[in-house]
Order: sequence, then C-alpha cells, then structure tokens
Amino acid sequence: MVADSTPAWIAEVAFDDHGLIPAIAQDATTGQILMVAWMNAESLAETAQTGRAVFWSRSRKRLWRKGEESGHVQQVREIRLDCDGDVILLKVEQIGGIACHTGRASCFYRRLDTVDGSSVWTIVDPVLKDPELIYK
Amino acid sequence: MVADSTPAWIAEVAFDDHGLIPAIAQDATTGQILMVAWMNAESLAETAQTGRAVFWSRSRKRLWRKGEESGHVQQVREIRLDCDGDVILLKVEQIGGIACHTGRASCFYRRLDTVDGSSVWTIVDPVLKDPELIYK
Repeated sequence: MVADSTPAWIAEVAFDDHGLIPAIAQDATTGQILMVAWMNAESLAETAQTGRAVFWSRSRKRLWRKGEESGHVQQVREIRLDCDGDVILLKVEQIGGIACHTGRASCFYRRLDTVDGSSVWTIVDPVLKDPELIYK
Repeated sequence: MVADSTPAWIAEVAFDDHGLIPAIAQDATTGQILMVAWMNAESLAETAQTGRAVFWSRSRKRLWRKGEESGHVQQVREIRLDCDGDVILLKVEQIGGIACHTGRASCFYRRLDTVDGSSVWTIVDPVLKDPELIYK
C-alpha cells in the first residue's frame, strides 16, 4: 500500500506483498556483486536521500543502515530499477572493502565445482578480516 | 520440501516458501548485471547440468529456458551461492548481447536522477533490437 504522500518515483517501484523489494549491491568500480538484501519504501527513500545504503532487516524487523555496527558503510553512486520494477540495483563504494558478515569482500564466495564427479559448493574467496574483530 | 533423491548441493540451497530462489545473471566478461529471475530446484539442476540458464517463470508457472523464444540464450560460466544460501549468482555469456525483453542489454536500464529538484527514473540505456523482431 502506498500513501498519498508517496513520491512518484517510489510509487513506480513494485514492492512485493510484504512491501519489500530485493536490492543488489554492486561495487561501482569493479562490478563485483557484493550482496543482496531487502528494502521497504522507507529504506529506499532514505538511501536516495542520504546516499548511504539502508536496507530492511527481515530478521530484526527494522531499518538496517548497512555498516551501522561494522563500519562497512556503502556509499551509493547510482540507483537503478529493472524492467519489471521489482528489483533494485545499487552501485556502491564499499567502505572497508568488506560487504559480507563473514569478513569477505562479497557474500557470493561459494562456487559450484565438480569434485570426483559430484557437484559441491566450494569456498573460493578469502576472509579479509575476522568477524570477531568486525563486530566487537 | 526436498526429496530424498535431491543432490546434497541442491539441499544446501535455501529456497523460499514457494520453493524458489532469486538468481542474478551477470555478464561473465564485463560484470554488467543483466537480469534477475527465479529458479526452483529443477531449473537450478538443469542449469548446472546443461550449462544453459533455466529459470522458473512465475507468471507462466513452468520452466523457462532463457532464450527459448528470443534465441538470447545464457551460457553459464560459473554458479555462485551467497552466505545465507538464498540468492544464486550466474556468471554468463549472453548470446546476442541482449538479456531484456525490451531489447536492451540489461533489464536495469532505468537510473534514478534528479530533474528540477525531483527524483525520476530515467531510461539511460538504448534499445539494441526491436522486441517485435526478437519475438516474431
């Protein structure tokens, strides 16, 4: 549901039945895909206004200003919307070079490989910083 | 629900309540994000087996072998899974250089711009081929 006061550009976004939309964060310089999280209208508006990525934490049920604990803020260089209006793309500068809570640059650190004839998810990216040192 | 015969690598994937997972297709060479679609276990298994992107069409409620009508097949170079196991990343070679049904390279062709003090979604990427010529 969209209130009358909703800006036109937000009314064009196709939020799902829960009022959410998936948002991809991509490194603006390297093109690396860092993470995917969810946004509601409020987090999208704040992201656009402040230039800092704000998501909606489904587990904590509150706004999640990326980096609020870790310091790993995402400065937003560009916001894009796909053809169906139901996915957001943020091109960001990842402060600290770490997007993932595991201490890796990207959350997509597992690759499907074939080992002895079987498919397995293999961790292929290094931990750059111990999570215990990130969230202390 | 996962059948007993489900391969271990698919059992590790966190499909949602509808048995689906979002999948990002990214150009393996340029890093451009091409599109986001949905997969079920069957489409993910076929993608891994054939090396060609297969999605689940939520509107048509059937497997969607990307390019089956348009010819714009995606050859899959790499499959990745994120830390929560609930988003798939495909690194692909986009045959024909067009992923979007609008005839554009990428579905993310709208950028949030400020015009006369207001935020607006601006189309910033060109149509490479008339959709009427793609889906004839």
